[in-house]
Amino acid sequence: MADVAILMGSDSDLGVMKGASDILQKFGIDYEVAILSAHRLPVETAAFAQQAEERGLKVIIAGAGGAAHLAGVLASHTILPVIGVPIMNGPLNGVDALYSTVQMPKGIPVATVAINGAANAGLLAVHILALGDNKLGQKLKDFRLDMGNEVRKKGLRLHDLGFEGYMLHKGGKK
Amino acid sequence: MADVAILMGSDSDLGVMKGASDILQKFGIDYEVAILSAHRLPVETAAFAQQAEERGLKVIIAGAGGAAHLAGVLASHTILPVIGVPIMNGPLNGVDALYSTVQMPKGIPVATVAINGAANAGLLAVHILALGDNKLGQKLKDFRLDMGNEVRKKGLRLHDLGFEGYMLHKGGKK
Amino acid sequence: MADVAILMGSDSDLGVMKGASDILQKFGIDYEVAILSAHRLPVETAAFAQQAEERGLKVIIAGAGGAAHLAGVLASHTILPVIGVPIMNGPLNGVDALYSTVQMPKGIPVATVAINGAANAGLLAVHILALGDNKLGQKLKDFRLDMGNEVRKKGLRLHDLGFEGYMLHKGGKK
Amino acid sequence: MADVAILMGSDSDLGVMKGASDILQKFGIDYEVAILSAHRLPVETAAFAQQAEERGLKVIIAGAGGAAHLAGVLASHTILPVIGVPIMNGPLNGVDALYSTVQMPKGIPVATVAINGAANAGLLAVHILALGDNKLGQKLKDFRLDMGNEVRKKGLRLHDLGFEGYMLHKGGKK
Amino acid sequence: MADVAILMGSDSDLGVMKGASDILQKFGIDYEVAILSAHRLPVETAAFAQQAEERGLKVIIAGAGGAAHLAGVLASHTILPVIGVPIMNGPLNGVDALYSTVQMPKGIPVATVAINGAANAGLLAVHILALGDNKLGQKLKDFRLDMGNEVRKKGLRLHDLGFEGYMLHKGGKK
Amino acid sequence: MADVAILMGSDSDLGVMKGASDILQKFGIDYEVAILSAHRLPVETAAFAQQAEERGLKVIIAGAGGAAHLAGVLASHTILPVIGVPIMNGPLNGVDALYSTVQMPKGIPVATVAINGAANAGLLAVHILALGDNKLGQKLKDFRLDMGNEVRKKGLRLHDLGFEGYMLHKGGKK
Amino acid sequence: MADVAILMGSDSDLGVMKGASDILQKFGIDYEVAILSAHRLPVETAAFAQQAEERGLKVIIAGAGGAAHLAGVLASHTILPVIGVPIMNGPLNGVDALYSTVQMPKGIPVATVAINGAANAGLLAVHILALGDNKLGQKLKDFRLDMGNEVRKKGLRLHDLGFEGYMLHKGGKK
Amino acid sequence: MADVAILMGSDSDLGVMKGASDILQKFGIDYEVAILSAHRLPVETAAFAQQAEERGLKVIIAGAGGAAHLAGVLASHTILPVIGVPIMNGPLNGVDALYSTVQMPKGIPVATVAINGAANAGLLAVHILALGDNKLGQKLKDFRLDMGNEVRKKGLRLHDLGFEGYMLHKGGKK
Repeated sequence: MADVAILMGSDSDLGVMKGASDILQKFGIDYEVAILSAHRLPVETAAFAQQAEERGLKVIIAGAGGAAHLAGVLASHTILPVIGVPIMNGPLNGVDALYSTVQMPKGIPVATVAINGAANAGLLAVHILALGDNKLGQKLKDFRLDMGNEVRKKGLRLHDLGFEGYMLHKGGKK
Repeated sequence: MADVAILMGSDSDLGVMKGASDILQKFGIDYEVAILSAHRLPVETAAFAQQAEERGLKVIIAGAGGAAHLAGVLASHTILPVIGVPIMNGPLNGVDALYSTVQMPKGIPVATVAINGAANAGLLAVHILALGDNKLGQKLKDFRLDMGNEVRKKGLRLHDLGFEGYMLHKGGKK
Repeated sequence: MADVAILMGSDSDLGVMKGASDILQKFGIDYEVAILSAHRLPVETAAFAQQAEERGLKVIIAGAGGAAHLAGVLASHTILPVIGVPIMNGPLNGVDALYSTVQMPKGIPVATVAINGAANAGLLAVHILALGDNKLGQKLKDFRLDMGNEVRKKGLRLHDLGFEGYMLHKGGKK
Repeated sequence: MADVAILMGSDSDLGVMKGASDILQKFGIDYEVAILSAHRLPVETAAFAQQAEERGLKVIIAGAGGAAHLAGVLASHTILPVIGVPIMNGPLNGVDALYSTVQMPKGIPVATVAINGAANAGLLAVHILALGDNKLGQKLKDFRLDMGNEVRKKGLRLHDLGFEGYMLHKGGKK
Repeated sequence: MADVAILMGSDSDLGVMKGASDILQKFGIDYEVAILSAHRLPVETAAFAQQAEERGLKVIIAGAGGAAHLAGVLASHTILPVIGVPIMNGPLNGVDALYSTVQMPKGIPVATVAINGAANAGLLAVHILALGDNKLGQKLKDFRLDMGNEVRKKGLRLHDLGFEGYMLHKGGKK
Repeated sequence: MADVAILMGSDSDLGVMKGASDILQKFGIDYEVAILSAHRLPVETAAFAQQAEERGLKVIIAGAGGAAHLAGVLASHTILPVIGVPIMNGPLNGVDALYSTVQMPKGIPVATVAINGAANAGLLAVHILALGDNKLGQKLKDFRLDMGNEVRKKGLRLHDLGFEGYMLHKGGKK
Repeated sequence: MADVAILMGSDSDLGVMKGASDILQKFGIDYEVAILSAHRLPVETAAFAQQAEERGLKVIIAGAGGAAHLAGVLASHTILPVIGVPIMNGPLNGVDALYSTVQMPKGIPVATVAINGAANAGLLAVHILALGDNKLGQKLKDFRLDMGNEVRKKGLRLHDLGFEGYMLHKGGKK
Repeated sequence: MADVAILMGSDSDLGVMKGASDILQKFGIDYEVAILSAHRLPVETAAFAQQAEERGLKVIIAGAGGAAHLAGVLASHTILPVIGVPIMNGPLNGVDALYSTVQMPKGIPVATVAINGAANAGLLAVHILALGDNKLGQKLKDFRLDMGNEVRKKGLRLHDLGFEGYMLHKGGKK
């Protein structure tokens, strides 16, 4: 059974939301993916959230753009933590989605991450699941070490090659 | 039976939404009022919208602040025209509510009026109802004439009294 | 005789406003199209609005960018419902057009939809016309079912193919 | 006959627009004042602009808030220079009025000043009128000298009294 | 031992952050409070986060205004979930704090709630803790029922008293 | 001798500012062009403005991006009307230039046009010059008629060809 | 002779700019204060900056609101470091002043601090002067320790008194 | 030993931050470059700042995007002047980075330059170092003269070639 659900309002959000699934895969978390729209499939969306806890889900990640109601609507039907990913989409560059996701009224919180921050939504789910899972916590610590080492390596390379050298090298790799 | 429903997400919105009821009263439109929250009463909110047409309602006016999902959620459950009033409330001055109300995805429109524009929401309902009601249309034309005459009267008074005189006069009246 | 007029301030808005005509065609609504500018053809614009009701029009859709005065100017000359489409155009990404369209003063409402939301403007017109036309209402309900089914189908495909598969598949189709 | 017309959309704008009349009075410019609304008195507004040149007006100053169409609508009906004053009014602090006034389409310019900048609108009218009037130009130069001297005097007082002294002194005067 | 820490950058944030402690108290969650500044006490702030897990904390709530670095800095030193509360404070109304809290780089998520949304930060902590605590989950469900009932009661009162009656009544109570 | 000066802060603004010169040429106005920077050539910039009136200039048009000080600095040194063109340039899309140009303090007005609105800056100069030149005024009226006729012609073509036909036709011409 | 000049565009900025003088006094830095306006006293402003280095000044602090050109204009006439304080003033809450101060073109930097951040402008001057003055550097380190201790003391008090106690206590002191 | 450190949060910032190194090289300033992340390498970042003064550094330049904490975190650990470069990166165009960098709390200033203004960050460092180095001051004056001359040359070329000629010529050179 999946621990995390990755939901999105439209298949145009897939490219962004893949960031969440990549992280969950990396940490070996079981997840499921679905397209659900607060506006185009309101009944299914409510039903999904109402049954989520019983189905064994632990965390819901929801990405939407524009008047992004998906995360808020899901949160209103479940007590599972809901993580909202405002998606950059259209003329307002995701500020509309950010406001629609983060400015929830008192009583129904949505844990909001950066615009297009699906990878961090996945990570936040891992941080939450790690509260009751020491092995997962250790994986998170290793992930952080790796992340730091990667920055360190880049720093060393920059030290060795200098600005031009590094940029050339980087360009050459792409 | 009421033709128009005025809904709001919280009783703190009453002061603003009264603007809609004042207009509907002035035009002799039957309306009902309710407090419904997309987040705190999601099931009732969906039910209200699903039954609205059958109950004989023609237009729904919904006011909400912050991540204002109310109008969009109602619109997703009914084919009645839904008019959204973004309510100014909190640090973002209603820009959050405006974006959450107006930036609806393709397929589910919300007819959005100005931030705190409840009176115009009421009027827009009247304009819509007047499509099938010539008498109401005539009332709208009279309303416009009165509105124009009021501006004209103020203009004449300003002409007579000048800036200082008018401001003094106005202050004295309040 | 047309029920709906689709007006726009410039022929550069045609690509966006076609979204409204596509919807009206789909629903079999009679509509007319015109280029009218609140600034470059002010007299014709006023005349159009003044005669609209008499000519049998029911709803006016007006799209404009920048200091988008078109919808507001039309609304000031008619009691027909006017739907405004703020058009994204230039450095402010349509926020100027949104504010110029939605922030109308008390007395003259404009039913505003999302920036570039011409399809929803068309739909909103259909929702309004459906108030006096049960057959059109049924078409709207069918349209919603189709829309929901389309999302469902995408959801199933995503379930079957997974992220990579779906994205590959989608890319392959374009 | 008046050289300048100061127009405003509502008598709630009087307090701000008085800034323009104060300046025009100071420079001995003949002006007239009127309340005209692009939305509530569209026909009179158009007529005013159409007759302005013939009536001998030289410059039109127009202040409006919200979806501030007044200056743009006037400009579309006259070749006289139109100066727009965006008025701070309501939740968007005048940004809506600024965008609605300044973002005019190619072909119909509005000379826009700061939000609530009615005094500068008056001054801009004086600068324009001074092009054909050397005496007025000299008055403008004197006005600038006075303005500079006033700043100089304050600077000297600050030099003498220091921060605390000056602030005390200033407070005492009010 | 406390399960949740409520941290804030300055004692001027106390009034807002009390919203979090009120919720945690209501749910019987053990919490501790501290003033820690990413900028004025950087060493203690890092140390607090580094020791948080070992000290038995489960969730960290951090509120800060302006260039609100507190939540992000804490998150960089711990794998516990960090909830950020952007605090409205100064000329930018909390938009600076929102952006500084939510726009975290890939790798270090902060679960952001609404500007001044401390109560929802407290609730989000409860939702997270309830994942491993059925009794707490039941309390959350009761809390939601109570919240819904309160809205229902207000709705009934509005139904009985009408706009004016309700507003009078409400005013009278304050 | 030139009547109008078109100044810009950098040669990267040439493409935008050409819009002003095109208009002035069309109206047969004598103009001069210069690159002057409030920051990189402050002494020359001040000198230019101080000598402008004596040199016979009537109107100054100044375009600049970013912290666009050029128009304001010029205006502080001359009583000639200064028209400011905020130039879109860099990450803030010209909002920085708009604010830096339009929000001038009391005493020193800048007549601001739309972001990148150089053509309208040129036209505004023509409107100002036409105050003392009936022939120029007539040209402006003819220009407006032509502009209206062009919109009319496009409207007719749209009427004849319909959406698809027009868009095809338009595409084919480019 | 003064090491630092605190300049401001208007005496309405005194209340904010006193923050800079308080800090300089605390650190025993010699400073002078003047009111200078880029727009109302452009010649004196340029002269001040041109002579600043020769007069022995080391750092210039300049505060201005609206289209805040003061810091940029000063910077264009001197190679001394110029620190800009955007002042919150009027409808745009200082965002106009922030953009006008910080978005300087390549070649002429202004070291910008927070909106109304005059105290930090003073501190930044101290940090710069401390580069060549070990004693001043030591004072800065002591200042930081004191600042940290103050936060620590508040934290302890909060620990002892709890939320309500602290808030009561704080209120009682005011 | 290096006088200036150029730090950045990610190697994706290299292209922008090279602007700072180009300037420092031009002025013959010794500098070092490193990649350090307030979030991914928090311990090293703190250590770098704590040791910076002792290692002989004079000025630190830090560029970061998004919730740009780097400059603020560095500033909290050192009394060296820290110059922050907000980097444009992602949907908010660098406004998030600008706010996160400039809106520092009282006590810890960051000298902020324009979004992507790395060249000016380098120059600001030179202005600061020139306070104790007359030769460097002279170089700055020469740099300014060269910069002015370049603008002058372009102005002359524009004078000679006119708009079209210049644009052609410029295009031809690229």
